[in-house]
Amino acid sequence: MTKKAPLVMIPGPTPVAEPVRQAMAVQTYGHNYSGFVEIYRECLNGLKTIFQADHMVVIGGSGTLAMEMTLINTVKAGQDLLVVSHGAFGDRFAAIAKVLGINADVLSCPPGSRVPLAEIEKALASKRYAALTLTHVDTSTGVLAQAKEVGELAKKYDVLYILDGVCASAGVPEPMKEYGIDVIVTTCQKAFGTPPGLTMIAFNEKAAARRDELGTVPGYYTDWKNWMPIMENPSLYISTPPVNHIVALNEAVKLILAEGLAARYARHERIGRSFRAGLAALGLETVTEKEALAPTLSVVKYPPNVDDAAFRAKVEENGVFIAGALGPLKGKAFRVGHMGIIGMDEIAITLTAIERALAALGVKVTPGAAVGAAWQEWDSVRPAQGCACCCG
Amino acid sequence: MTKKAPLVMIPGPTPVAEPVRQAMAVQTYGHNYSGFVEIYRECLNGLKTIFQADHMVVIGGSGTLAMEMTLINTVKAGQDLLVVSHGAFGDRFAAIAKVLGINADVLSCPPGSRVPLAEIEKALASKRYAALTLTHVDTSTGVLAQAKEVGELAKKYDVLYILDGVCASAGVPEPMKEYGIDVIVTTCQKAFGTPPGLTMIAFNEKAAARRDELGTVPGYYTDWKNWMPIMENPSLYISTPPVNHIVALNEAVKLILAEGLAARYARHERIGRSFRAGLAALGLETVTEKEALAPTLSVVKYPPNVDDAAFRAKVEENGVFIAGALGPLKGKAFRVGHMGIIGMDEIAITLTAIERALAALGVKVTPGAAVGAAWQEWDSVRPAQGCACCCG
Amino acid sequence: MTKKAPLVMIPGPTPVAEPVRQAMAVQTYGHNYSGFVEIYRECLNGLKTIFQADHMVVIGGSGTLAMEMTLINTVKAGQDLLVVSHGAFGDRFAAIAKVLGINADVLSCPPGSRVPLAEIEKALASKRYAALTLTHVDTSTGVLAQAKEVGELAKKYDVLYILDGVCASAGVPEPMKEYGIDVIVTTCQKAFGTPPGLTMIAFNEKAAARRDELGTVPGYYTDWKNWMPIMENPSLYISTPPVNHIVALNEAVKLILAEGLAARYARHERIGRSFRAGLAALGLETVTEKEALAPTLSVVKYPPNVDDAAFRAKVEENGVFIAGALGPLKGKAFRVGHMGIIGMDEIAITLTAIERALAALGVKVTPGAAVGAAWQEWDSVRPAQGCACCCG
Amino acid sequence: MTKKAPLVMIPGPTPVAEPVRQAMAVQTYGHNYSGFVEIYRECLNGLKTIFQADHMVVIGGSGTLAMEMTLINTVKAGQDLLVVSHGAFGDRFAAIAKVLGINADVLSCPPGSRVPLAEIEKALASKRYAALTLTHVDTSTGVLAQAKEVGELAKKYDVLYILDGVCASAGVPEPMKEYGIDVIVTTCQKAFGTPPGLTMIAFNEKAAARRDELGTVPGYYTDWKNWMPIMENPSLYISTPPVNHIVALNEAVKLILAEGLAARYARHERIGRSFRAGLAALGLETVTEKEALAPTLSVVKYPPNVDDAAFRAKVEENGVFIAGALGPLKGKAFRVGHMGIIGMDEIAITLTAIERALAALGVKVTPGAAVGAAWQEWDSVRPAQGCACCCG
Repeated sequence: MTKKAPLVMIPGPTPVAEPVRQAMAVQTYGHNYSGFVEIYRECLNGLKTIFQADHMVVIGGSGTLAMEMTLINTVKAGQDLLVVSHGAFGDRFAAIAKVLGINADVLSCPPGSRVPLAEIEKALASKRYAALTLTHVDTSTGVLAQAKEVGELAKKYDVLYILDGVCASAGVPEPMKEYGIDVIVTTCQKAFGTPPGLTMIAFNEKAAARRDELGTVPGYYTDWKNWMPIMENPSLYISTPPVNHIVALNEAVKLILAEGLAARYARHERIGRSFRAGLAALGLETVTEKEALAPTLSVVKYPPNVDDAAFRAKVEENGVFIAGALGPLKGKAFRVGHMGIIGMDEIAITLTAIERALAALGVKVTPGAAVGAAWQEWDSVRPAQGCACCCG
Repeated sequence: MTKKAPLVMIPGPTPVAEPVRQAMAVQTYGHNYSGFVEIYRECLNGLKTIFQADHMVVIGGSGTLAMEMTLINTVKAGQDLLVVSHGAFGDRFAAIAKVLGINADVLSCPPGSRVPLAEIEKALASKRYAALTLTHVDTSTGVLAQAKEVGELAKKYDVLYILDGVCASAGVPEPMKEYGIDVIVTTCQKAFGTPPGLTMIAFNEKAAARRDELGTVPGYYTDWKNWMPIMENPSLYISTPPVNHIVALNEAVKLILAEGLAARYARHERIGRSFRAGLAALGLETVTEKEALAPTLSVVKYPPNVDDAAFRAKVEENGVFIAGALGPLKGKAFRVGHMGIIGMDEIAITLTAIERALAALGVKVTPGAAVGAAWQEWDSVRPAQGCACCCG
Repeated sequence: MTKKAPLVMIPGPTPVAEPVRQAMAVQTYGHNYSGFVEIYRECLNGLKTIFQADHMVVIGGSGTLAMEMTLINTVKAGQDLLVVSHGAFGDRFAAIAKVLGINADVLSCPPGSRVPLAEIEKALASKRYAALTLTHVDTSTGVLAQAKEVGELAKKYDVLYILDGVCASAGVPEPMKEYGIDVIVTTCQKAFGTPPGLTMIAFNEKAAARRDELGTVPGYYTDWKNWMPIMENPSLYISTPPVNHIVALNEAVKLILAEGLAARYARHERIGRSFRAGLAALGLETVTEKEALAPTLSVVKYPPNVDDAAFRAKVEENGVFIAGALGPLKGKAFRVGHMGIIGMDEIAITLTAIERALAALGVKVTPGAAVGAAWQEWDSVRPAQGCACCCG
Repeated sequence: MTKKAPLVMIPGPTPVAEPVRQAMAVQTYGHNYSGFVEIYRECLNGLKTIFQADHMVVIGGSGTLAMEMTLINTVKAGQDLLVVSHGAFGDRFAAIAKVLGINADVLSCPPGSRVPLAEIEKALASKRYAALTLTHVDTSTGVLAQAKEVGELAKKYDVLYILDGVCASAGVPEPMKEYGIDVIVTTCQKAFGTPPGLTMIAFNEKAAARRDELGTVPGYYTDWKNWMPIMENPSLYISTPPVNHIVALNEAVKLILAEGLAARYARHERIGRSFRAGLAALGLETVTEKEALAPTLSVVKYPPNVDDAAFRAKVEENGVFIAGALGPLKGKAFRVGHMGIIGMDEIAITLTAIERALAALGVKVTPGAAVGAAWQEWDSVRPAQGCACCCG
């Protein structure tokens, strides 16, 4: 590529900090070399801290594989699974359940809204589910789920609680013990700010016990029991882990812990609000209900007469790469990620690229108003602790 | 790490060339960004050329996941699978088959030898197998299988032929059409010289048709039918691919094609012979039978009274990281990889590290004899075409 | 450094493109290794194209050393030199002349204005000067000199014409043959976008002949005659050249030639105008007269009651590193570079950082107005040829 | 370059460690950015520790410029300078002195031998010299001078003692206070293991006072008085320093101090002896007298009938880049550097490349004998402290 690639502002992958990029390029280590074993351990321990997890598995794969692996390790074919779906990624649990022979009951709702807690409770009360899945932030609709409240229901009805953190982890709080989460399914290319390629699962002793109860499970690479000894002692071997990726993730984890979890989550909140203040100044609205807005991405309705493909081509021409919408929203909305190392500079660049694209397509805009509004929102907050979010 | 890591001479991961390392560190792209889509396509096409493949799937995972994914897509639970095993990685097919409910008949042999062709034929004649697996090079025993001859048997008995290329691909010829291979299961951190983290599967139309016959398969991420449209058009989406890894693999593939397949395979042969000439000068012997020696790694018997752990610790102290043996060979042999970008400089460094370790442990050696013998073997060949093996 | 460094928006060094950065990091070559010799040659040839130069010397040093080296090679102690000064860097020629025993007559003017051509002509007519120096863009005042018109005077009065291109080269046209320039003194960390560390001199046959006339000159490293054979044949040796830096500069030169000189100069013009449109929207004015505004940097007057140190500290806190003013302007103005790979994203980030700093210091601003005005100016131009300015 | 560059084994530039390479590629900083100012200071302080220096100047340039700059700052035109020359780089002081109008008396000797101390003393006793220069290691002849003993003479005759450390610094002890050295002239691409491009001068108060006595000196960039305030406070400005290079040198200095000076000098000694043990096993002899052998490079006589160009071409074909000889030795000897991060692996690779080249040119060799002898020499020493020489 001789042309500079556009700024990547889709809801994952997100831009990668320099130390994480450099770590991707280390001369690869033997997977059982003591120096690497130490890094792997440090990385897993850091993740346990972030999630309050008893166990962590990090291997090559993707978020979808993490979802599949989790169902394989916690639900038997023929058992019932309650899927709370706020969009395409909620639905995916059902699709995976299907091929695994698991019966999934799906609670859905219109795009942009949340399944009411009462509806979830009603379902839980009606049947004994082996597990419940919730998508913390559904990347297709920008909906932030009520992870804590659902945790209370899960506890009340004693159902294994699986949270899909893919588009939330490291950007939105996910304290497993505090919220009563049993498994977090996640990956690295969203708020972790690491290039894609990992399957990451955090789980507690209850989930580990569930795996034991299942006996044999229909997976080998995906049987987390095969991996648990390696995660305790990475000098052991079952299948070669993604060495460089682990080194990179460890750098990302170190940056996260250096920023501080509270400061990081607050920064994501603030960035999200600021971006949306900018959108509002352009007359744009989110698909997502006000109460359900995720800090990590925005799904934005097109104004009348703006063509999806033409708009996104213009924005890319303006140097920013954003995403179209999925499923029923396709053509009607666009999606912008704002997580990981994305800061106000990237927000300003993106709002300007959007503003100019709208203008080029005939929409009336006040030049600079979006950026101005975003910064005003940002500056209206005084963070308790300095936002040392990013990285050299 | 403040100390320089030792030279990685295990049978994978292997050292990574500069352009491949730099590619690992690119600022990550949107997975559907046109610039990346083009790279993905170029990479897949290059691999198709290397393997004479009709289809390629390259996603996040590992070689083991490639094995599992292949069984999922080609053999149904309850069907029969013939596993020709030359060691731990042959046996792994049986272990995976077991959890998938597939009946595996395993043909084994003593470590270092090959299952005779006649035995394979006998088995094929005795039962109608859904598929046959063969490990091209078993990383545990250093045995190179008779991939071509088994292809002829597979054809004769019309059985789907799955070759595990993990420790062979890009170092030993694997022309699917020529050898009658239906599926090659492989990964990137061995002779491809790319950091670990990928599941790579090459297959032909026959294997694709087999997948279709199976209807639903017990996997979602591992259902290659979910990936085939993306592999044809990488701007489509099912699960985020490992972007940076693909960019890196593409660089590795370009280096391979620039070297030329014939030259590359010849170089691996020559390197293997040279290393073993050096071993012989030290009085060391391989576990592997002479006829079955793989060009990509050597599994070497310890002389009497040399302790495995002490020896490998010494070699590491001497700056080289080698591997212990697995299974029944554990403690009795060590393993050294010599594939990918490894050249004679690394061979010489490794032989010297071994020589010095032996000396330190009381074995009588002639200083320099191993290196001298290795280079003499190397220099005894005049390659038809200049060996431009390596990379800036 | 654990904190991310601020965006460097001073008038040099300027941000460095990825391929140039990567080139800085190549494993260093032998200075007479054929592969490097080829790169050195390519680099020098590219520079000759950019400047229409007969000779190029590129060695380790800085712009100031290039100035000194040029006087050493063209003017004898005791001879007269006419220095046209538009600020601190014009005056520097006089300071260097002094230590070399050269008599410098300096034509000055108030900061921000130009020495009138008539005054230059008057001086040239009054005395036979060995050489004339002109600072193409004076980094202290932001004044763009009349390089072409002065070239006509130099021709008319047959005086050796030395142009200091440091803050102009690769951002403002400097066609030696067309403008009648005999020597261009320059360096790499401004519009060339390469990290600092080089002395670069372009000269023609007339300047080469002048050197010959001087016989011995009071410099060894600085005697360009010692270097001319190496520049013709970089496999020769006099003193080790800055290998990695040459590789990096060559990448920068390739990016410049790929962009095209006309397109590049037009882009710099447009960026400069856009930045100033933004400044105007903030009520800020340049020190520099309207007719003399350089495309490569702006020197901006502080509004009343804005403290230099406080303002720049705020801007740095906002993530952007700008410069204070020099000499008589110190404390009264600030300086911002906008050259090399700097594009509208960096302009917008910088304007916002300035706007927020002003607001924080009590100046009334309309949020976003500066960015809006800058983009409107940018979008008011349709470049004849696509602006493929930047680089992956 | 698509081909891998050969291993650079010339006496500078030498191979660069990963952290130093990465530092070369940092996104460049403003030269007065606080983060960089801190790095510059740390680097200068580290160098002061290495040299026991009162003052350090590190700017863009080369070793030759450091020599010239030192004469400019310490000796007036017309004054007398005693040059002790052990080859081309000793003679260079005389060449520089000449263009600066300094009278140089040169003490020479046959290539490979040292000027006797008695001869130096005789010269010092005969005339009042403004300064004395000594080349610590002459890169052309491989002669290590008697730096300490000459220091005693310099003290006795109260002459300013300038030591050219270019091919010695960081590989051979140069404790200024202990040896009575007043100025060390050096650079970075030899035992410092940093890419070339720097002028480095260490000096004491006596040399600083000498500069003061001189009043005006015929240099501006080369007047170290212009730089001394910046070296005390790098946030000040006179001419832009080579930012990335300073960051890289700082990494190199940190590696040196982490290794420990005593351990580092011992390692260089041991490497030098080991390489020469290997040469001896090939029947090769050094040009340099046994007592004068430098730890940092070897200058090796060709055996009869071996052609310089053909031999070096073969060695390069074998993957190693070595140097021809200079001046009277041209064609009669070759030169190999062994300093900085070069370890026994590189020594072994180089000896093998030499052995194979000799064999190809018809010289009888015992394959492996050179490597064997080198390692035997290396292993005959038990370093007091572990040799943690290298770097990740």
